[in-house]
Amino acid sequence: MLHKIINLTVRDVRFPTSLEQHGSDAMHSDPDYSAAYVVLDTDCGLKGFGLTFTLGKGTEIVVCAVKALAGLVVGKSLQEIVSNFRGFYRLLTSDGQMRWLGPEKGVIHLATAAVLNAVWDLWARAEGKPLWKLLVDMDPKRIVSCIDFRYITDVLTEDEALDILVKAQEGRQQREDQMLKEGYPAYTTSCAWLGYPDQQLKQLCTDALKSGWTKFKVKVGADLEDDVRRCRLIRQMIGPNNTLRWDVDEAISWVSKLAEVKPLWIEEPTSPDDILGHATIAKALAPLGIGVATGEQCHNRVMFKQLLQASALQFVQIDSCRLGSVNENLAVLLMAHKFQVPVCPHAGGVGLCELVQHLILFDYICVSANLSNRMCEYVDHLHEHFANPVVIQDAHYMPPKDPGYSCEMLESSVKRHQFPEGDVWKLHQNK
Amino acid sequence: MLHKIINLTVRDVRFPTSLEQHGSDAMHSDPDYSAAYVVLDTDCGLKGFGLTFTLGKGTEIVVCAVKALAGLVVGKSLQEIVSNFRGFYRLLTSDGQMRWLGPEKGVIHLATAAVLNAVWDLWARAEGKPLWKLLVDMDPKRIVSCIDFRYITDVLTEDEALDILVKAQEGRQQREDQMLKEGYPAYTTSCAWLGYPDQQLKQLCTDALKSGWTKFKVKVGADLEDDVRRCRLIRQMIGPNNTLRWDVDEAISWVSKLAEVKPLWIEEPTSPDDILGHATIAKALAPLGIGVATGEQCHNRVMFKQLLQASALQFVQIDSCRLGSVNENLAVLLMAHKFQVPVCPHAGGVGLCELVQHLILFDYICVSANLSNRMCEYVDHLHEHFANPVVIQDAHYMPPKDPGYSCEMLESSVKRHQFPEGDVWKLHQNK
Repeated sequence: MLHKIINLTVRDVRFPTSLEQHGSDAMHSDPDYSAAYVVLDTDCGLKGFGLTFTLGKGTEIVVCAVKALAGLVVGKSLQEIVSNFRGFYRLLTSDGQMRWLGPEKGVIHLATAAVLNAVWDLWARAEGKPLWKLLVDMDPKRIVSCIDFRYITDVLTEDEALDILVKAQEGRQQREDQMLKEGYPAYTTSCAWLGYPDQQLKQLCTDALKSGWTKFKVKVGADLEDDVRRCRLIRQMIGPNNTLRWDVDEAISWVSKLAEVKPLWIEEPTSPDDILGHATIAKALAPLGIGVATGEQCHNRVMFKQLLQASALQFVQIDSCRLGSVNENLAVLLMAHKFQVPVCPHAGGVGLCELVQHLILFDYICVSANLSNRMCEYVDHLHEHFANPVVIQDAHYMPPKDPGYSCEMLESSVKRHQFPEGDVWKLHQNK
Repeated sequence: MLHKIINLTVRDVRFPTSLEQHGSDAMHSDPDYSAAYVVLDTDCGLKGFGLTFTLGKGTEIVVCAVKALAGLVVGKSLQEIVSNFRGFYRLLTSDGQMRWLGPEKGVIHLATAAVLNAVWDLWARAEGKPLWKLLVDMDPKRIVSCIDFRYITDVLTEDEALDILVKAQEGRQQREDQMLKEGYPAYTTSCAWLGYPDQQLKQLCTDALKSGWTKFKVKVGADLEDDVRRCRLIRQMIGPNNTLRWDVDEAISWVSKLAEVKPLWIEEPTSPDDILGHATIAKALAPLGIGVATGEQCHNRVMFKQLLQASALQFVQIDSCRLGSVNENLAVLLMAHKFQVPVCPHAGGVGLCELVQHLILFDYICVSANLSNRMCEYVDHLHEHFANPVVIQDAHYMPPKDPGYSCEMLESSVKRHQFPEGDVWKLHQNK
């Protein structure tokens, strides 16, 4: 079967999370977690599902961008695409007219991610495997052939990438078995969004500790005194041996004042574009034992390359929906390995946990072979809308078993939350 | 009069330039020069016109993004906006939901530029001045109040910016008189697009020399042997004392081989996101006397800041439609001055010459006070569609005299070229 792609649909799906202050932080006070949701239809009936994450308003722009890319996908067969996946990646990212809109950044790259995520989902389904297993079983040469090395060869050549993958084959089976048994370690962001009152914060911490969570992220950056108070409160709750992490908007002096509560890292302390700024902050915070983590708004492999070159980060936070899907994330995982910087993925939002778990499982089994200082973000929201939601056991991501990239949303959820015509939004308009 | 903005319209305007290979280079083989074109209506009848430049396909995405921003503009008065222009800039670029789509990059930032260009046009019209003169006459404090200094204070504080502007007041009147008399020096890109055959190239060079042009840009980067041949041909035509400039896609070795034809700079030799890569290339080419120029795809002030910090460029190529309008360009002009790197704007496309001439006039009169190694790109295309087209005399931009930012297009041109319903496009579809 060729799995010829005969149709692409894209929908604007929004969840009214702003009503409950879920997802609130210093830069995003009222997000409605949303997605541009893509479905590929093939001539044999198999479907591919993909998405990119957004925060509500403007999702229609990403939907518009996906439609602009659709003509490059529809009519091609899955085999045609994956037999030259690097070429297909370039086709999407280097169109002579559309690349001006990026290149490889912002709306057009988010749309590229949604489309490519659907292609990877389709590929994994066609092979009858969850995506992480498709990658784990894939020949290293084939993996490397999916990556666009343009603009990163000064740091990682194709041969070096191949070498990393071949070397990491040793012990692969044991690590896969370990993951199937124990899962991949997670940390939680669900307890301490900026908009939550103290009482809710305390209750959520207590509940999380009972469920086995030992690592917590706290949203900060709006008011320093308030931050210190909230962090002390959480540090009291979780005790001295559990790990605390941060999001802040301003940098060195602010974080220095929070050093008493022993955060492991500070997250995206300045403009996500400011590589040299992150490097300065990282250098200043090193003596305090606080690392810099960044990546959820790092828009492509070229930016990650420079963050690594400049020693600007101690934790690489890949995102399954901002980078150009699995293809570009593979490049970042391999570069991070070369620099020996641990990858701790960004997750949460809509579907980010579902998707990124596949990538971090692959990273452990086939690239890093290391769990030290590594964990994957987890947020306990909106999983009920997915056909194959994540499974968390004792604060670990358990490897998905269903074929695909876990991107499929329940059709009933999509219908209810489609913007602006779904029932959920009609209801809000009538209020 | 308050000039309350009561309506915003945006249209997708495309010119079928790909049919004649105008604008062709190594990365953009078939551009249709296009624009998302914005008109603001006010309650007093005055209009503001703005645009951002695109390459054809995908312009509808930028149009969609402008519509998403419209709600932040319509209903406000011009006075309300310009009395806190920094705040308004942040409102557009930091919306809690939409900033995820950038922030300050790609489609959403191009749309921001189009909207803000229209606001600046409206402001200049309300004051009855061409935009450059509005800026030249503006109190330095007022100018500084238009700039968002977030993420650049490590290089340029508000006080430093003010200091630069105050210091440059000396000799301002003479420089303004000089500009009115002589105009601002330009160089031409019209002669040597990649897709032009040799005979056309020769004829265009001959004509240009006759009209007083002494500085030429050559598009290269597709085939090295072909490049060397084309460049020798042009160097033969223009003689040893005229300046030659470059666009290339690959870097050091390629350019080293072109050194014989003595280019002044090589333009955007690698990924526009690769600050450290540009720095490496700049260092390698310095002994050959070739500088690095970049900026037309540099997406915001934070990226320019780092290019300057890293000594990654010897010529700053600002763009009137990719950066966040005048506001963000002011920040870049001031940073470039601090680092003493000359600004040589990117122009061409649709309307880029019309707009950017205002910025470079302001730069000379009120910031740099220097013409050494400075010139503004010029391309002789599509000016006939503008209400106040640029005036070139003896290879110099003559300062515009009509009120506004020279963004207004002829309504008849807009109607004919609207995509896909304009006559020009209906015609192509029927062929």
